[in-house]
Amino acid sequence: MKQNVLSKMGRRTGVPPISWLMQTALTRPKLISLAAGFTDNSTLPVEISRKVLNEILRSPKTGQPALQYGITAGEMNLRTLTAKHLQKLDGGHDRAHSPEHVIITGGSQQLLYMTLEALCDEGDIILVEDPTYFVFLSILQSRGIKARGVKLERDGIDLAHLEEVLERLKKSGELRRVKALYLVTYFQNPTGATTSLVKKAATLKLLKKYERAAGHPLYLLEDAAYRELSFSSPSPRPSGERAGVRGFELETKGLLTPTLSSVGGGEGENAPPTSLTLPGAAERVIYTGTYSKPYAPGARVGFGILPEPIFTTVQRIKGNHDFGSANLLQQLLAGALASGLYDKHVAKVRKNYSHKAAVMKQALAEHFPKSVEIWESGGGLYFWARLPKKISAGVKSKVFQAALKADVLYVPGELCYADDPSRKKPDNEMRISFGSASVDNIREGIRRLGAVLRKALAR
Amino acid sequence: MKQNVLSKMGRRTGVPPISWLMQTALTRPKLISLAAGFTDNSTLPVEISRKVLNEILRSPKTGQPALQYGITAGEMNLRTLTAKHLQKLDGGHDRAHSPEHVIITGGSQQLLYMTLEALCDEGDIILVEDPTYFVFLSILQSRGIKARGVKLERDGIDLAHLEEVLERLKKSGELRRVKALYLVTYFQNPTGATTSLVKKAATLKLLKKYERAAGHPLYLLEDAAYRELSFSSPSPRPSGERAGVRGFELETKGLLTPTLSSVGGGEGENAPPTSLTLPGAAERVIYTGTYSKPYAPGARVGFGILPEPIFTTVQRIKGNHDFGSANLLQQLLAGALASGLYDKHVAKVRKNYSHKAAVMKQALAEHFPKSVEIWESGGGLYFWARLPKKISAGVKSKVFQAALKADVLYVPGELCYADDPSRKKPDNEMRISFGSASVDNIREGIRRLGAVLRKALAR
Repeated sequence: MKQNVLSKMGRRTGVPPISWLMQTALTRPKLISLAAGFTDNSTLPVEISRKVLNEILRSPKTGQPALQYGITAGEMNLRTLTAKHLQKLDGGHDRAHSPEHVIITGGSQQLLYMTLEALCDEGDIILVEDPTYFVFLSILQSRGIKARGVKLERDGIDLAHLEEVLERLKKSGELRRVKALYLVTYFQNPTGATTSLVKKAATLKLLKKYERAAGHPLYLLEDAAYRELSFSSPSPRPSGERAGVRGFELETKGLLTPTLSSVGGGEGENAPPTSLTLPGAAERVIYTGTYSKPYAPGARVGFGILPEPIFTTVQRIKGNHDFGSANLLQQLLAGALASGLYDKHVAKVRKNYSHKAAVMKQALAEHFPKSVEIWESGGGLYFWARLPKKISAGVKSKVFQAALKADVLYVPGELCYADDPSRKKPDNEMRISFGSASVDNIREGIRRLGAVLRKALAR
Repeated sequence: MKQNVLSKMGRRTGVPPISWLMQTALTRPKLISLAAGFTDNSTLPVEISRKVLNEILRSPKTGQPALQYGITAGEMNLRTLTAKHLQKLDGGHDRAHSPEHVIITGGSQQLLYMTLEALCDEGDIILVEDPTYFVFLSILQSRGIKARGVKLERDGIDLAHLEEVLERLKKSGELRRVKALYLVTYFQNPTGATTSLVKKAATLKLLKKYERAAGHPLYLLEDAAYRELSFSSPSPRPSGERAGVRGFELETKGLLTPTLSSVGGGEGENAPPTSLTLPGAAERVIYTGTYSKPYAPGARVGFGILPEPIFTTVQRIKGNHDFGSANLLQQLLAGALASGLYDKHVAKVRKNYSHKAAVMKQALAEHFPKSVEIWESGGGLYFWARLPKKISAGVKSKVFQAALKADVLYVPGELCYADDPSRKKPDNEMRISFGSASVDNIREGIRRLGAVLRKALAR
């Protein structure tokens, strides 16, 4: 009697895999977690936040507006600073970076949620990278939205496969249910892959080609949550030629196969411009970013840049959710950005993660069997490890159980694959994070994991 | 081609009436707004917030956790403090006040949203007070949930009418679509009415009676957003006899008719215990409250106390929305509560609103025609005015236009009525707020509005 009072959505909304992993971690106090996508405690901007908040709360004149209701889309000051910040990262491009289309949200997660509310009915389809961000898959599942996977290469999705998937959906009559393609474009969660600008442009073009058959726009939903966590400096590019794309052609890269190989190694490749810089972006790109990862998850300020009619719709939906995000946090971020403290902080954060990634890389080279393929990233929080296909690293696998027993936790890669009937979910992969673990724990954690893998491979 | 990419919900989500009112206010700089439900800028806790945040961000040890991710349901510390705070307000009762069932949200608005997500499919029915909180109606409309109104008296809903509505829905076979009854129980938005404990108890009993025919639980969704804004001291009652209800009987009160009459006048009636203190509450009461109104909307921390399976479902949904509310704000509220600064602040806030309500009351007596019926409240932010039935005060009425012309804004009462085919929406009512206007503007605003009404009635 009790369960059937729930909505269909209520019944569909499952236990999030991440909370199960966190629960598991709590039961083993000595466990080293290489699973959490948490940021590093030691880099959190305690001093900066104190300074900025003191400045805001120093007088009633500045303090009162920060403690009052604001505007649903967010404070114009922060929206303007955000648009400028993104323009700077994109080398001065301002094509689709209008503050009027910026909306401030409770992390980029809330933006993703509301965008799906605005776009999708039950039974609609979102194309995703294969593998992709697992909480995004949880939202889709909960809302009865289908996900269809597009193969992921180290510089972004496999364009030929995207076309194949679109063609297949067109033939089956399902294309009219497709609303968007979701890409995590920088140092992707979980693989660390960064989508090249060439691939972004080709993707937009390909989506456009299928709009007629779909009967409506096909959006590119670009999630740039990890964008600022580049190991090398994402310094502004000269505006003009390089940042934009004029005549591009589909680039087909052979699959890289060395055991330890770099994903988007060079400086330029580490921070390609967003798809907002491309022709037609203002109409078709839904861009999301966040200050959670580079600044502080505990302040949880994210944002989106949205085309119409998505902007208006999401803004109205946000009115129903919460009338707009907490002003105090918006002003904290605005203060940090305007004072330049934000940029200084991010430089420090990048240096820290870069160091920790190097430590993990060395530990992986030392302890992991050579038959494990490692995807190394130019930023973000993750390494991606692919075991030989016969070895499962899934939730119920011997490897996962042995790792738990050895007090080390990773995210089984299979959790990052959509329920897509057109292929079996690979279960031989692992997401390994250096985000929150200390340098010592990274070394020890990889040592433990390496021992588990050696044993599994020796069988 | 563009609009049809939106989901059904996206297309249904309309312009919120409140943003239209705010927009209108912006175009007339000299306008006195008695419309907004904003809190008074001058009472916002700037100094307290600075103090508490400095304490938190004083050292990395306390600052880092506040800037890191937390737990989806909220920090256990704040959940415990919240449960204790509510217990105290309820006179020591702890029947349904367990911290394990407290969830922290982005204002109580987000809790309302997620509760409806957990409970309702398109076509389901929520019973509401007639009139009720208009943003709640916006959520229902956006999600395709039907609202059915129950007549509101000055001490809560009309119980005979509730039974009549339930009986009618049972006969039409629609009772199985009913999931909950939504009541704003303290100093209601928009009327200022406070629901007596006797009525809460009778309501719970009546809902229980119809559960069998519904085939599932019928929840009482108690929204206590304005609870702490009582003009008289909501001091803890002695626990035991008075707070709980043993043998109660349906109280039928005659409609009070004096021109200026008090709604819940005495101290006890100002702050009756919540329905959480009633037998069976732990299973059937969904309680929501907020720190936005009594503390600061710009910190936007709300909460719910939820029975199973609603708690677990809402917690999972919140995982998909935002993984939990910003830790920094949760710790701000926890710090304010634990230090006693919160209680001191609320006492100050209540005194301020009490004074402003008295100013408005006097102005109403002076300037409003005697034929206008005023509902005076014992707390909150609103007066409710009912014009003679032949006079419309609706959005398109001459009165509203004349008021705008005279540079004074109110909320037309008709916006607070659900789309319920069983009755015509009354359009002769006004919500008048003393929340954000200054004492001078309250006097001047009511003078202007009084002049408009005198003119309208003289026609």
